Amino acid sequence: MSPTPVTTSELTQAGPSVYTWEATDEEVAARYRVPFERIARFDLNTSPEPPALADRILRAGRFERPVSEYPPADYRRLAEAAADVYGVSRDEILVGAGADEVLDLCAKAFLAPGLRALLPSPSYAMFRVLTEQRGAGVVDIPRRGPRDGFAMDVPAVREAAPACALLWLCSPNNPTGLAEPAGSIERLLEDLAADATAEGGLPPVVVLDEAYAEFAGTSLVELRHRYPRLVVVRTASKAYALAGLRVGFAVGDRSVLAEIEPYRPPGSVSVVSVTIVTEALRQPAEMEANVARLTAERERLAAALSAEGWDVGPSITNFLLADFETPARAAAVADHLLRRGLVPRTFGPAHPLADHLRLTVRSVEEDDRLIEAAGDLAPDEDGI
Amino acid sequence: MSPTPVTTSELTQAGPSVYTWEATDEEVAARYRVPFERIARFDLNTSPEPPALADRILRAGRFERPVSEYPPADYRRLAEAAADVYGVSRDEILVGAGADEVLDLCAKAFLAPGLRALLPSPSYAMFRVLTEQRGAGVVDIPRRGPRDGFAMDVPAVREAAPACALLWLCSPNNPTGLAEPAGSIERLLEDLAADATAEGGLPPVVVLDEAYAEFAGTSLVELRHRYPRLVVVRTASKAYALAGLRVGFAVGDRSVLAEIEPYRPPGSVSVVSVTIVTEALRQPAEMEANVARLTAERERLAAALSAEGWDVGPSITNFLLADFETPARAAAVADHLLRRGLVPRTFGPAHPLADHLRLTVRSVEEDDRLIEAAGDLAPDEDGI
Repeated sequence: MSPTPVTTSELTQAGPSVYTWEATDEEVAARYRVPFERIARFDLNTSPEPPALADRILRAGRFERPVSEYPPADYRRLAEAAADVYGVSRDEILVGAGADEVLDLCAKAFLAPGLRALLPSPSYAMFRVLTEQRGAGVVDIPRRGPRDGFAMDVPAVREAAPACALLWLCSPNNPTGLAEPAGSIERLLEDLAADATAEGGLPPVVVLDEAYAEFAGTSLVELRHRYPRLVVVRTASKAYALAGLRVGFAVGDRSVLAEIEPYRPPGSVSVVSVTIVTEALRQPAEMEANVARLTAERERLAAALSAEGWDVGPSITNFLLADFETPARAAAVADHLLRRGLVPRTFGPAHPLADHLRLTVRSVEEDDRLIEAAGDLAPDEDGI
Repeated sequence: MSPTPVTTSELTQAGPSVYTWEATDEEVAARYRVPFERIARFDLNTSPEPPALADRILRAGRFERPVSEYPPADYRRLAEAAADVYGVSRDEILVGAGADEVLDLCAKAFLAPGLRALLPSPSYAMFRVLTEQRGAGVVDIPRRGPRDGFAMDVPAVREAAPACALLWLCSPNNPTGLAEPAGSIERLLEDLAADATAEGGLPPVVVLDEAYAEFAGTSLVELRHRYPRLVVVRTASKAYALAGLRVGFAVGDRSVLAEIEPYRPPGSVSVVSVTIVTEALRQPAEMEANVARLTAERERLAAALSAEGWDVGPSITNFLLADFETPARAAAVADHLLRRGLVPRTFGPAHPLADHLRLTVRSVEEDDRLIEAAGDLAPDEDGI
């Protein structure tokens, strides 16, 4: 590992990376001649159904403001509810239109041309996209292999970090499905702080995406006291089953949030979303039931796919990562699934997981269709 | 006018400009001891009430996707509805979470450190904020005075434009309330294209914010055929009375939208918003009634405030701009209104309109409270 790896953007000299979607429902229906209602999205890591409280609030028709008005500039009630759930004070919360907007605000606040962001890869695709869109360079630090749970390479991260303005961490990590080993992020932050003190500078900002924290049952929000440049990102999209409402949070020390706050747009979260997510945070029973149900269903789905011969890795999230050994076989399996209306998350040919597919844990009914499709996939019929 | 004016950010060397809100409802209630329900927002240029169709759709509880799912990657139905309303094809529409996100995407696509954006000022505050957040410089071209309807200084704009990557135009202009004179944007675009051809380069991107176009009854979307680097920005926030749902659009030639598209985030618009705005575009009767009602109410409010001695300028939008001659008197009037729970839009002391207030046309009841407050404001009691 070179101490200052060449960045992706320096290598390519092309435009910034772009987020790529899987085909839309309409495209899958047309391309694979599948009835629209038979399409099931295994690519988005969303929950199979929303909490009943969302429907109740929608039907009651009363929201934070009338829908003709912008949301309140400070999202006070929503921020208070998030603060209570995450165990922080209200001014340690910054509200965004989904974790994606929060990540964008972090890129705006801390990255610029000439600066670098460190990325233990593979991880969530938007880290690279947002870094390069900001004109900054990505320092890729490859993760360890599946036998090490795709953990980040801590010594390499520590070595490269002083040259970086920002580190994008993600635990549990998407798309690999496991958290960093217990204590490793804590020790890394201690080391980064010590290295910065020795150099007489500020340690890098560490953005820790905890989108799947509720499935893991743990959070590192408390580390903000020892590492004030830590920004923890949380979301209503995953365990709360409210991805369609676009609400996320930055949780951190007042000092680091004060650097992000100037970039917050005038009011990006829908007033409907504000009310529903406030209540979802206040009444966590349905979220907890969703986590319990998906955790059990994940184990059932993993066991059933393994029984059909798939190489499914361990996961503490609401998705599974399956290894198909070659990119061609992964593509053939994806095609086999799409013909049945089942949309997996694929990775481009240049991606380190090009030979894998990522599959969201869905409802029993949809998962049964996936299991059945896996069973239909004879080893000698899969196009290889 | 120097051909390459010094930019604001080069002058100040400070951080980028920041959007500033008026006080929140809670802050006004606490600071001025006004009952919460007596607070009326004259600062946000929102409509006094949402269309009935929004309530019907909310109570029916069926949306583009369940709220547990992300919106479709291409917002197909919403983009089709917008295309029909704006008279373009679906691939000439790009959907964003409010006009604010669309403007941010334009800044990301076309601005970078070392580049400049031209701004006929004063105009919408976010143009400067987004430019400076992107690390680019603002070339301020002061607008003409009130006797010229605050029209942009077309010769100065044309002269400065070749050094700029992007022009931020706004017609009808916020916060001044009138459109550019008929034909002036059309002629400017022709001249910019001719100047670029003469220089052998590309003309600058022109972002034309038409947030208030429905009140004016006209749009320049058709100019995209003659000036393919035109991006017209439209919104559901103003005439459609759906600000709280955060939906806006870029309308333009495929070529210029293709340059913005890579910056579009994975899915920033709520699935609830997608459905309601799609229907609002499909059923424009309530929007048209809102425009008719606010247009009549605007004239009533302007006449009544003028009768109380206020210097209210002409407007073709849903807001009025009032001139109080000195920043101190404007501040005193704002304080007088705030004590009654009426929140005007103020401008900072360094703003060219520091001696003005901007006031949204609201309901008859709320406007009557504003008129009454103006009547209570004796010339010798206003703190000057």
